[in-house]
Amino acid sequence: MTVKISHTADVQNFFNEVAGVDNDQGNRRFKQIILRIIQDTARLIEDLEISDDEFWKAVDYLNRMGTNQEAGLLVAGLGIEHFLDLLQDAKDAQAGLTGGTPRTIEGPLYVAGAPLSEGEARMDDGTDPGTVMFLHGRVVDAQGAPVAGATVDVWHASTQGTYSYFDSSQSPYNLRRRILTDAQGCYRARSIVPCGYGCPPSGTTQEVLNQLGRHGQRPAHIHFFISAPGYRHLTTQINFEGDQYLWDDFAYATRDGLVGRLDFIDDAQASKARGLDGKPFADLQFSFQLQDAQDASATERSQRPRALQER
Amino acid sequence: MTVKISHTADVQNFFNEVAGVDNDQGNRRFKQIILRIIQDTARLIEDLEISDDEFWKAVDYLNRMGTNQEAGLLVAGLGIEHFLDLLQDAKDAQAGLTGGTPRTIEGPLYVAGAPLSEGEARMDDGTDPGTVMFLHGRVVDAQGAPVAGATVDVWHASTQGTYSYFDSSQSPYNLRRRILTDAQGCYRARSIVPCGYGCPPSGTTQEVLNQLGRHGQRPAHIHFFISAPGYRHLTTQINFEGDQYLWDDFAYATRDGLVGRLDFIDDAQASKARGLDGKPFADLQFSFQLQDAQDASATERSQRPRALQER
Repeated sequence: MTVKISHTADVQNFFNEVAGVDNDQGNRRFKQIILRIIQDTARLIEDLEISDDEFWKAVDYLNRMGTNQEAGLLVAGLGIEHFLDLLQDAKDAQAGLTGGTPRTIEGPLYVAGAPLSEGEARMDDGTDPGTVMFLHGRVVDAQGAPVAGATVDVWHASTQGTYSYFDSSQSPYNLRRRILTDAQGCYRARSIVPCGYGCPPSGTTQEVLNQLGRHGQRPAHIHFFISAPGYRHLTTQINFEGDQYLWDDFAYATRDGLVGRLDFIDDAQASKARGLDGKPFADLQFSFQLQDAQDASATERSQRPRALQER
Repeated sequence: MTVKISHTADVQNFFNEVAGVDNDQGNRRFKQIILRIIQDTARLIEDLEISDDEFWKAVDYLNRMGTNQEAGLLVAGLGIEHFLDLLQDAKDAQAGLTGGTPRTIEGPLYVAGAPLSEGEARMDDGTDPGTVMFLHGRVVDAQGAPVAGATVDVWHASTQGTYSYFDSSQSPYNLRRRILTDAQGCYRARSIVPCGYGCPPSGTTQEVLNQLGRHGQRPAHIHFFISAPGYRHLTTQINFEGDQYLWDDFAYATRDGLVGRLDFIDDAQASKARGLDGKPFADLQFSFQLQDAQDASATERSQRPRALQER
């Protein structure tokens, strides 16, 4: 028979002491959360009869995961980040906050402080041999009217599937830009078509996915923060029609309403008209609709700790 | 009203997919554990209405904790390691495996492969100005008969409260030894009286303890692994009577039956007879009683990943 003690008064009192519930120092909310984590951990150990070896392997895993800075990647891979979106959707539905472009996960690879420009930007530094991509669209409000001066903060991977800053072989802020929409609410970017991201093959996230019988691949995608005074901050991503991993993303970010179409244009004249040397290029149009902000805090992204690169 | 979705069929199906329950690759036991962790995490987020900021602060904490290699210290400070001892005690009681020296937590600072000697050892390298301590005792079986050839694997902190290997200013394996008991089951060590350990003040464990209104101090203590063929492995520690933190250990390791008495002897003649220069010294006698092993695996310590120093 499974032996359980975590429900006993002695053990509950012990957990209360550990979580500092009985002392008047520290942070009450924090104590409440830690108490719950301790109780859940104890119950999990009892219910699943976690062995010492399993427990200490998990502790060692946490040290290795943190050393790799992969906690953000793991919560994406375990669907917790997507769950947060589903839960926020449900909260929004209950509050009647519907409409607009769907949110989806941020992922762990944003870097704050990308170059800011008005109306348009070139995102790549010219070294990636990928197909040139013209990305453009509008930011509109709930009524479909243009939002001028909105910040389109956009970042994506290289054709190697890697991100500048985290891939130190790329130049600072390569494939990362902030573009302010013009008077018509339009933004325009020239970049290269990104490839899908894959978890580091020998990393701690892939180690978990292997045990779960899962791959660690994402479809190609482009990340966006869209923000403007008076509008609700939007964190989202778009994918491309026809991608092998479109509905098989290890991070579960693909959503209806967030699938764009890359038009590949193989027309030397059109290429030259765009300032290219006649090679094929891709065109991607994607527009965003923002909700009105209910209060000032809704205009801002979460306070998630993020990287900031020295320029 | 709190919005909850984790109980819905859609979300449960999603979690099953995430945990790989429906695929036939990977590791079944691992999937079961991960599924439970995901479900518990989702419920915790819903029940306590965890904000995005709180969630991402926790993710960032895990990265910082792992970078500091403090996961083992945190599970001690949150009482989970002590809970594992309480649970094993309860399992033992149900199985009728009682008697012998109590177990207590290992802690995260063991280093495998300490010098091995027969009967006795000097543990300190002579550089620590602490009071000389003569530590000695016997290892006996359930009937009180001596266990010859038992391995007494002993490690403790310096007078700075730090451990060799983790404190790189100490020589390799300083204050760490393995001593084989003699024909009478006796071990003898010369060392220095350790000071209590404190969590790194700017570390991630202390960061949590501060929020819980708790200190991060331990009473002075000596760690032991006691093992011998045919006997159940014992992981334990002893503390000293009169220590300020004796029953106020942040790691909750102090237990009845594990409190030793340091006899301080201020007698120049006795000091010289022990080969010292007349200064006071301490004497500590502590004996261990082992249970019989129920099977071969019981003779071994857990497979917890541990440090191994190059010599």
